[in-house]
Amino acid sequence: MGIEMINGGVTAAKGFSATSTAAEIKYKNRTDMALVYSSVPAKVAGTFTKNVVKAAPVLWDMDIVKNEEHAQAVILNSGIANACTSKEGMETNEAMAKALAEALNIPTKSVLTASTGVIGYVLPVDKVTSGAKAMAKTLSDTIEAGTEAAKAIMTTDTIKKECAVTFTLGGKKVTLGGMSKGSGMIHPDMATMLCVITTDAAITKEMLQKAVSADVKDSFNMISVDRDTSTNDSLMVLANGLAENPVIDCENDDYKTFCQALAQVTQTLAKIMAGDGEGATKLFETIVKNAKTKEDAVILSKSVITSNLVKTAVYGCDANWGRIICALGYSGVDFDPKIVDLYIESDGERIKLVENGKATDYSEEQATKILSAKHVTAIADMKMGTATATAWGCDLTYDYVKINGDYRS
Amino acid sequence: MGIEMINGGVTAAKGFSATSTAAEIKYKNRTDMALVYSSVPAKVAGTFTKNVVKAAPVLWDMDIVKNEEHAQAVILNSGIANACTSKEGMETNEAMAKALAEALNIPTKSVLTASTGVIGYVLPVDKVTSGAKAMAKTLSDTIEAGTEAAKAIMTTDTIKKECAVTFTLGGKKVTLGGMSKGSGMIHPDMATMLCVITTDAAITKEMLQKAVSADVKDSFNMISVDRDTSTNDSLMVLANGLAENPVIDCENDDYKTFCQALAQVTQTLAKIMAGDGEGATKLFETIVKNAKTKEDAVILSKSVITSNLVKTAVYGCDANWGRIICALGYSGVDFDPKIVDLYIESDGERIKLVENGKATDYSEEQATKILSAKHVTAIADMKMGTATATAWGCDLTYDYVKINGDYRS
Repeated sequence: MGIEMINGGVTAAKGFSATSTAAEIKYKNRTDMALVYSSVPAKVAGTFTKNVVKAAPVLWDMDIVKNEEHAQAVILNSGIANACTSKEGMETNEAMAKALAEALNIPTKSVLTASTGVIGYVLPVDKVTSGAKAMAKTLSDTIEAGTEAAKAIMTTDTIKKECAVTFTLGGKKVTLGGMSKGSGMIHPDMATMLCVITTDAAITKEMLQKAVSADVKDSFNMISVDRDTSTNDSLMVLANGLAENPVIDCENDDYKTFCQALAQVTQTLAKIMAGDGEGATKLFETIVKNAKTKEDAVILSKSVITSNLVKTAVYGCDANWGRIICALGYSGVDFDPKIVDLYIESDGERIKLVENGKATDYSEEQATKILSAKHVTAIADMKMGTATATAWGCDLTYDYVKINGDYRS
Repeated sequence: MGIEMINGGVTAAKGFSATSTAAEIKYKNRTDMALVYSSVPAKVAGTFTKNVVKAAPVLWDMDIVKNEEHAQAVILNSGIANACTSKEGMETNEAMAKALAEALNIPTKSVLTASTGVIGYVLPVDKVTSGAKAMAKTLSDTIEAGTEAAKAIMTTDTIKKECAVTFTLGGKKVTLGGMSKGSGMIHPDMATMLCVITTDAAITKEMLQKAVSADVKDSFNMISVDRDTSTNDSLMVLANGLAENPVIDCENDDYKTFCQALAQVTQTLAKIMAGDGEGATKLFETIVKNAKTKEDAVILSKSVITSNLVKTAVYGCDANWGRIICALGYSGVDFDPKIVDLYIESDGERIKLVENGKATDYSEEQATKILSAKHVTAIADMKMGTATATAWGCDLTYDYVKINGDYRS
C-alpha cells in the first residue's frame, strides 16, 4: 500500500466542492469567505481550542461534532474572529449558518462555521449572510476552487496552505485532502487555527474522531509560532464515503492506512503553517530523541521551538546552542545535562554542536551555513530512553514585531 | 514603623563594602567583576534557578546555602555564564572562590559566586583569580563602590539596578539594600538572574531563608522578559547582624517588618529589571483581581505579561484587548469569560476596555495615549473570588530581535 501526494486540497476527494467570495467583512479587494461542501452528508469529526475563551463558531461546531452524526458544509471567513462577542456573536454565527443551509437545502446543524481575524468584533450579519447565499451558487469541484477557498481564509499568512493524498483501502482508491490557515496566535492545543480536511473514505464517525484526536498530538499540537493559543482553533474533518471502500469500523489495517494518510496531510499542513509563521524567514524543527517518555519528548521539543531566545538566534543564524540546552533545562522535564548530545542539520548536512553536555570543536562557519537554510533542524539526544517527538516552529524576526505591533490597522 | 527608601545598594547596610574591576573576561574597556563583602560573617540565604541545567556557580552556592550557617563574600562576573561547562567549569569556579578567600583570609566556603553571560564557555582562570585578588585590596563601603559593583555585572542591561531601605527593629535602625542584573533570559523560577541583598539586621539563618523563599513568590518570580528561565538565576542574601536589633528568631512583628522591607527592595529591583528587559521601551504590569485563588491570579497575570502578541501590541500602543483576554483564556485557569472586566492605566489615567467580556465604547485615542506611557498597567477583574497578583514584564520590540539575533558577537 502506498500513500501518494497529489495536487489539490479540499476538493480532491470525490463529492467535495468549494468556492469563495469577497464579502468585504474587513479586507477590501480580496476574497474573505470560503465554503466547502459535500454532495452527500459526511461523517463529521473535529478538535477545537482548549482556550477557556472560545469564539462563537467554535462553540457552534463543538455542539455539532458532539451531537450530530453528519455535516455537509463548512463556511469560513477571515478578517473578524467573532470571539469575545457574547450572545450577539452566537446569533450572527447562527444567522450565517442558517442562510447557507437554506440556500443549499440542508439542515442548519449540518453547517460548520469558522472565523479568523481580530478578536472582539461581531461579524456584519448582512455581509456574511449575503456572502453565504452567493457562495451556494458558485460551488465547483475543480482543484482551483479549492485553492481559491484556501486563499480566502488567509490573514497574515503569506502562502495558501493545502495538500492532498491518495491511497487504497479494500481495493478502492481513496482521497484525503485539506486546507488550513494560520500564521500568528499559533500554539494549538488539541487543534489548529483553522483547518478543513475532506475525504471520500467510508469510516464510522467514532473511528473518524478517534483518528483525528490521535493525529493532532503529532501534527498541529506540535507547532507553535508565538506560544499564543487562539480562541478560534478548529480542525474539522468530513468523510463522505463516496470512495466505496469497506467501512472502517474498528482499528484494522485499513484504519492504520487511513491514519497514515491523515498524518501525511496534517503534518504537511502543520509544517507549512509553522514555516509561514508571522514574520518568519525559516521553518525551525526540533527532534528530541531517546527521551524517557513520549510526553517528555513532546515537552522538551516544544520548549525549544517556543523559546524567544532560540528563535532569535535561529533568525540570526547564530549557533548559540546554550540557549537550546537552557530551553530543554527549564521545560520541566528531568534529565541529565551532562550526557546530552546536540546536532543541527539542513539540506542533508549535519554537525554535532554538543557532546555529553559540552561544546565540540565544531566550525562556527559551517554552523552558520547550516542555520542559513530555509528549513533548519535541531536534534537533541537525551540518552534517557527511547521516546521521540518532533516539533515545528519558526524564527522570531523584526517582521513579527512589525506585523503585531499594529495588526488591527 | 516606617520603611524609608534611601540612596545606595549593597553597601548601604553596616559592615558591607564592595568593589569592581576590569578583568577582560569577554568585554573590553569596562568593568566585568564585582565583589560584595561583609566585615563579619553573615547569615546566608538564597534561592536559585529551577532550570535542570544549572551553572557551576549555582551548584556551588546551593551547597553553601544548604550546608553553611554563614557567608562573607559574593564574587560576581559578567560576560561568561560558566554554564554547560561540566567539571572544568566547577574547577574554575572553585579556583576563583579560593583565590578570593585566601586574599580576604576567610574560608573558601564563605565565598558565594555568580556568573552571567554566554552559556558554554569556561571562565578564564588566570583572569578571574587575578581579578579576585585585585578586588580584595580595593573594597570600600561608600555608596559609589556599591554602584560600581552593580554596573560591573551588567550585560545587555541598559541601567544599573540597586536600591536600599532603612527601618527600625527593637529601637535599632536597620538597613537593607541590594543590587541585581537581568535583561534577557529573564523568567525566574524561585529566583532571579543575579541579585545580591545585604542587611545589617540580626536574624537567624532559618528565618532569613523563610523570608527570602516567601518573598520571591511576589517579586522576582513575577517578572518575565522572554519566558526563558536562565541557567544562572541566583538570589543571595547576607545578614550580618551589625544593626544590633533583637535577633529575629520567630514570626514576630519584627519578622513582618523585615519581610516588608525585603519586599520593598526586591519588588523595586524586579520592576526595574522588567522595565529594562532587552529592547524594551516600557514596563508592562498586569494586575489580576478577584481570582478564585492566589495561584490562579499568579498564572493569569503571568500569562498576560509573557504573551508575545500582547507584548507587541503594547509596543505598538495598540489597545488590542482581545489578545489579553485570549492570554487569560489559554493560561490553564478556569474562569467565566462572560463576566471579565478589563482596564488599562498609566500616569493616573484609567479606562475600562471590556465589561462583562465585551468591548465598551472606549476611545481608541485615549487608549493609545495611556499605552504610550513608560509604565503601563492592565487590570483584569475576574469576579471569581478575592485573590490578587501582580506580574511585571515589558514590550517586545525590534531591538529585542536585534540584540538576540546576534548576542554572541
